[in-house]
Amino acid sequence: MAGTGLSIGNNGVMSPVPSVSNSITVRLELPARVTAVSEITTAVAEVGGMVTAVDISESGTERLQADLTIATHGTDHAAEVVEAISTVDGVEIGRVSDRTFLAHLGGKLEVRSRLPIRNRDDLSLVYTPGVAKICQAIAQNPADARTLTIKRNTVAVVTDGTAVLGLGNIGPLAALPVMEGKAALFKRFADIDAFPICLDAHDADEIVRIVKALAPGFAGINLEDISAPRCFHIEARLREELDIPVFHDDQHGTAIVALAALKNALRVVGKELADVKIVMSGAGAAGSAIIRLLLRAGARDLVVADVDGIIHSRREDVVRGNNGNLAWIASQTNLALETGTLKDALVGADVFIGVSAGNILTGDDIATMNEDAIVFAMANPVPEVDPVEAGRHATVVATGRSDFANQINNVLVFPGVFRGLLDARSDHIDDEMLLAAAAALADVVHADELNPTYIIPSVFNQEATTAVARAVETAARARQERTP
Amino acid sequence: MAGTGLSIGNNGVMSPVPSVSNSITVRLELPARVTAVSEITTAVAEVGGMVTAVDISESGTERLQADLTIATHGTDHAAEVVEAISTVDGVEIGRVSDRTFLAHLGGKLEVRSRLPIRNRDDLSLVYTPGVAKICQAIAQNPADARTLTIKRNTVAVVTDGTAVLGLGNIGPLAALPVMEGKAALFKRFADIDAFPICLDAHDADEIVRIVKALAPGFAGINLEDISAPRCFHIEARLREELDIPVFHDDQHGTAIVALAALKNALRVVGKELADVKIVMSGAGAAGSAIIRLLLRAGARDLVVADVDGIIHSRREDVVRGNNGNLAWIASQTNLALETGTLKDALVGADVFIGVSAGNILTGDDIATMNEDAIVFAMANPVPEVDPVEAGRHATVVATGRSDFANQINNVLVFPGVFRGLLDARSDHIDDEMLLAAAAALADVVHADELNPTYIIPSVFNQEATTAVARAVETAARARQERTP
Repeated sequence: MAGTGLSIGNNGVMSPVPSVSNSITVRLELPARVTAVSEITTAVAEVGGMVTAVDISESGTERLQADLTIATHGTDHAAEVVEAISTVDGVEIGRVSDRTFLAHLGGKLEVRSRLPIRNRDDLSLVYTPGVAKICQAIAQNPADARTLTIKRNTVAVVTDGTAVLGLGNIGPLAALPVMEGKAALFKRFADIDAFPICLDAHDADEIVRIVKALAPGFAGINLEDISAPRCFHIEARLREELDIPVFHDDQHGTAIVALAALKNALRVVGKELADVKIVMSGAGAAGSAIIRLLLRAGARDLVVADVDGIIHSRREDVVRGNNGNLAWIASQTNLALETGTLKDALVGADVFIGVSAGNILTGDDIATMNEDAIVFAMANPVPEVDPVEAGRHATVVATGRSDFANQINNVLVFPGVFRGLLDARSDHIDDEMLLAAAAALADVVHADELNPTYIIPSVFNQEATTAVARAVETAARARQERTP
Repeated sequence: MAGTGLSIGNNGVMSPVPSVSNSITVRLELPARVTAVSEITTAVAEVGGMVTAVDISESGTERLQADLTIATHGTDHAAEVVEAISTVDGVEIGRVSDRTFLAHLGGKLEVRSRLPIRNRDDLSLVYTPGVAKICQAIAQNPADARTLTIKRNTVAVVTDGTAVLGLGNIGPLAALPVMEGKAALFKRFADIDAFPICLDAHDADEIVRIVKALAPGFAGINLEDISAPRCFHIEARLREELDIPVFHDDQHGTAIVALAALKNALRVVGKELADVKIVMSGAGAAGSAIIRLLLRAGARDLVVADVDGIIHSRREDVVRGNNGNLAWIASQTNLALETGTLKDALVGADVFIGVSAGNILTGDDIATMNEDAIVFAMANPVPEVDPVEAGRHATVVATGRSDFANQINNVLVFPGVFRGLLDARSDHIDDEMLLAAAAALADVVHADELNPTYIIPSVFNQEATTAVARAVETAARARQERTP
């Protein structure tokens, strides 16, 4: 981006429909002839763009200045659109801005005082000398911090920027916009005050030390976009050593929402979790967490494939023994010791769950599955199999995308999970709570609403966060009663 | 504090007048006789309290329930007040709450989204898929983070809780209310988004590592309430190794406001900084920073005393050489090698600056100073010398307290310093900026306003923060031009 104006970001991902997140605003000068705007609109439409707003910013007798907002498919397409406009007779292109960039100007969060500071009295309450009493009370009874400080309602969103969205290791600074967005979602959906902590540190033990050191001010840690297998070690150590819950959303948020969706998909087709054969693609952070939660929920027949094919306990890299996570998967799944490729495993399977890469399967592969097949193709932005093709052979299809039915989206889960944990003042999180969250989320879809295109509520469903929160709170309180 | 109600904090500090920060609210039942409230008010007044509000919460024919808000001198006095109320015939005391505790319920900050999230379009801008473009832009050009993320306007308020107010090493959790208050002041006075980072870490190098690791998301670091001499090492290393400014408010904020006040006090008495003899009490974090800034500003005759008396280069602990800060003070001050006590040094001095402990000097000691003496007794909450007594012998007296004229308060400085640094996108802070801030703050008091009781503006003076910010920004930009 240049210092003066906003240029268009370099996004390799093409959106299938013109989208507001790929919306641009083009400032242009045009002749004051009656057809000028419609000529431009037509030129934009001819290359597949869509003019969504025209704002005249200056008008003279011969020339106009206007800001056109145009939905596009992505960066390359936006350039094409601008090129098309420039061919209209008498039009001069000015600054081209991107709506997403404009929305991000100045960042997405602010930290505000909950109390007014209008005068000496206010100052003496909020700061010195009054605040000294609060410090002393907490020094005497640390539990009071949950009442008298922001610890009550505050979660750290921690990343090292090593596995950000599908962008990979882009570093902590470039990860900040995602963490800000996450914090904004925490506030929007669960009224939680979340703050981004982007760590310039890569050694797993160093990250553990840092997060432990900064934990006092927080009531929970949401790990985000940390690459596997480091994320397993970091989460495990933090859970063991901290007295606040630690949740890696990429793992457990995904697992909860996938399990909730699967419960409802199985209701649609009339099958039982304990009876179905589930084939998974992807053994990374999300995949491993899904496997763990499916097993805890009662699934018995799981076969997992990664880029090297079906994982089994005789596979060379498993035998070699330098990947603990792979070994664990081999020990807990595929008890029949199937071998071969993902496609081999898929034959006769009831359920496919993909958290891997785009376009690795075709409709024909889905056709080899059992009757009433369930397909969750969750790779983003391109699903493992085209959902339209999959729908020709499967009964239920879900993806991670918002432009198809049945979006499997973590936003349905993480705000409610933390709301429940904070409300219970929980010092831990365990599998019981994850299972409770999945069950509660599934039940948000009532029996009379359930059908193949509605197995999971919309992200703006008001009930979802509340249902998850209450379920997690209840499970957390039950744990507290068991282990006082 | 008990789980159900709020009890009164254990604050050893007595306020000389009943104060709202020591205000309590007493819920009580009283008989519905016409004199009952006035009997209570009288009982409270007889022990020195002051009823500031009476709210009847329930009323019957024979009994009333009321909430009385009462200003007290402090915790012990509050107990006395409650005891006095209980002697009124027919009164029953219910829950006693403390206004400061009530104000702190739930903490003092919230983190809010600056953008609405109402629908899919909003979600796709704030979070995925739109946010990916922003991440990619920053990955390509890290400087864009100052435009497109909260880094633009966000400061970390970092403590380890080792030197909190006058309370000492109470730990990171108990320090949180102070850090929240500081963040609230940043917002109130300079519209800066500040967030508290309370570190459970004590080794200075470990703190350096942690702050370096979490720095990417911030545009500045405000160190707070870290004990000396560790704070010197931590600040020095962070300044050297980070590309954002690091400011230890206890040191430099105090130094700036003290220098500003001294400039104006010298104007009042018609003396020059280069000519006066300045005696200081206190060689800790604040004292050392004041010494450094006074010398940079042109002071030449400084004598510093600590608990062991006047610091000079022949003093045993200086010669022994295991305290670098003490050695530095000995090398830069007291060139005449004065020896003896603080009181010895004070004889004939023009200026006294105390950042040490309460009640170590009397009016008689001040009487030994030169004509038109200037006394800054900044120890809190009890000044080095009673300001009323000092005023009998000195021309200008200032303290750190809000209940006397000339309050030397860091709130006048730190918000403006960071506002200026952020506006200049400065990657450093240097002494030129501190000097510029002090000069600008001094000049907020116009020539026609200046007098012995008004050498420094009030904390609610609108001009103070702006003047400091513009001065720091100008100095920072000048530095950028010198070292591009």
